[in-house]
Amino acid sequence: MLSFLFFIYFSGLYSSIAANMEVSNVFVGNEDHYKGIHVDSVKEPCENQSSFSLKLQDSLKKWSEKNVKAIWFKVDLKNVDWVPILAKNGFRFHHAEGEIVHMCKWLPDNEESCIPLYAHTTVGAGGVVINSKGQLLVVQQRFQNTPYWKLPGGYVEPGENIATAVIREVLEETNITTMFKSIIAFRHSHQAAFGCSDLYFIVELEPISDHIIKEDKEIEACEWMEIDKFLTHPNVHENNRLFIRQYLTSKELRVSILGQEAIHPISKKPQMLYGISNRKE
Amino acid sequence: MLSFLFFIYFSGLYSSIAANMEVSNVFVGNEDHYKGIHVDSVKEPCENQSSFSLKLQDSLKKWSEKNVKAIWFKVDLKNVDWVPILAKNGFRFHHAEGEIVHMCKWLPDNEESCIPLYAHTTVGAGGVVINSKGQLLVVQQRFQNTPYWKLPGGYVEPGENIATAVIREVLEETNITTMFKSIIAFRHSHQAAFGCSDLYFIVELEPISDHIIKEDKEIEACEWMEIDKFLTHPNVHENNRLFIRQYLTSKELRVSILGQEAIHPISKKPQMLYGISNRKE
Repeated sequence: MLSFLFFIYFSGLYSSIAANMEVSNVFVGNEDHYKGIHVDSVKEPCENQSSFSLKLQDSLKKWSEKNVKAIWFKVDLKNVDWVPILAKNGFRFHHAEGEIVHMCKWLPDNEESCIPLYAHTTVGAGGVVINSKGQLLVVQQRFQNTPYWKLPGGYVEPGENIATAVIREVLEETNITTMFKSIIAFRHSHQAAFGCSDLYFIVELEPISDHIIKEDKEIEACEWMEIDKFLTHPNVHENNRLFIRQYLTSKELRVSILGQEAIHPISKKPQMLYGISNRKE
Repeated sequence: MLSFLFFIYFSGLYSSIAANMEVSNVFVGNEDHYKGIHVDSVKEPCENQSSFSLKLQDSLKKWSEKNVKAIWFKVDLKNVDWVPILAKNGFRFHHAEGEIVHMCKWLPDNEESCIPLYAHTTVGAGGVVINSKGQLLVVQQRFQNTPYWKLPGGYVEPGENIATAVIREVLEETNITTMFKSIIAFRHSHQAAFGCSDLYFIVELEPISDHIIKEDKEIEACEWMEIDKFLTHPNVHENNRLFIRQYLTSKELRVSILGQEAIHPISKKPQMLYGISNRKE
């Protein structure tokens, strides 16, 4: 349920500045639809730690009186001295990256916090790239004890679509140019990097070029391999064999999972909609 | 590419404590496969800010001499005073939640940082629940200007599988008990809550119960609606109509996207593998 509410909540549809709170020693912030106040350290700087501490306490008192629910502080690294003071005033970390940490506090003492968690899933994609001879593009990574053969691929970058990510990674790792054909399968694993879950999409790509030039820093080897060899190779993990069997099943059933670009009806931000279609070939 | 490497990197497969660094004024930390050192504030406390600052500078000097690549500090809220000192020594935020903030620094001056980003994708799921009369379970949420009808659903919790999440959300919102049938489609949207991307999976569920008891705090209305009515209702977003058309297509093509539980071959942690199958009914 929270998904939808907070999609609106954090999509920039803030109501106007809480002008009625503009008394001298209270942070102004932006008010959201859920009686939450968002303060940006860069927009409302304080002279020193002591003046910040006093203003914070005055603000918390005023916000409590006004039944504000959630207080958010977006703290820039240049105001990092605010962090211990916020922590000592009951704020907890929500999320952080680079120069910015977001801290929050649920004000009502008698209610459970309704603040939703930040993202806890990484997203990656691997390419099933089959050439005109029916061979599969495979790589071996460096830093492995056993030289496993796997699909080229990697993480999806912020704001990037799945197909864009895997086409980029295949090009980076093997110099093979490709086009999106279909999503084939995906894996949802848990307790992965940083304790996150991980979604890994298997994407069928059609190669436009044929000549491999492998990337040297992270790729140990790269080749076009017969599918039968891959399916029986001792140095292929069962997951990867299963993905290729899924590719063969999707061909046999004459089904693709295609995506269409669209605009999200509420946020008006870009989105891709993926669904089952008849396979065209 | 980084996906795989850092899956190993952060899956707890640390090598032994860096015992050779155990000089009096250098943090010991855990060493990882990529010449990174991980210090946990709780395991290596310092008496005060000044002693932390001195030890940090000695440590950075020693680590540089030893060609350590990445330095990670996991700072507990009880050691929050470390945060400004780390920031002033060139550390940046990596991720944070609740009582913990993770800061990191790429040591080599002449190399681009290879530290991968934290998760930036939220994951949710919505249920396509069709009863024996062919009617669709739909909800209206509170806090909407227009009373839109949509699918019940919400965020996937940490470590939770997609089907488990949507079955839980449908039960919470409508008191309808359901069973997983198939993944139908998914939406990948960008610039959503907290600036994250969002993956929203549409899951076909078979209802085991029929009597709706709606949750009152977040749900305004809930009913079994004829599919044709939903597909033409003015207060249904195009996304939701498209998901139902995808459901109808998947039935027509006699195709399901099923999941199978497994263990990740490298991390040995739980995973689900989803792929196209023949629809059984």
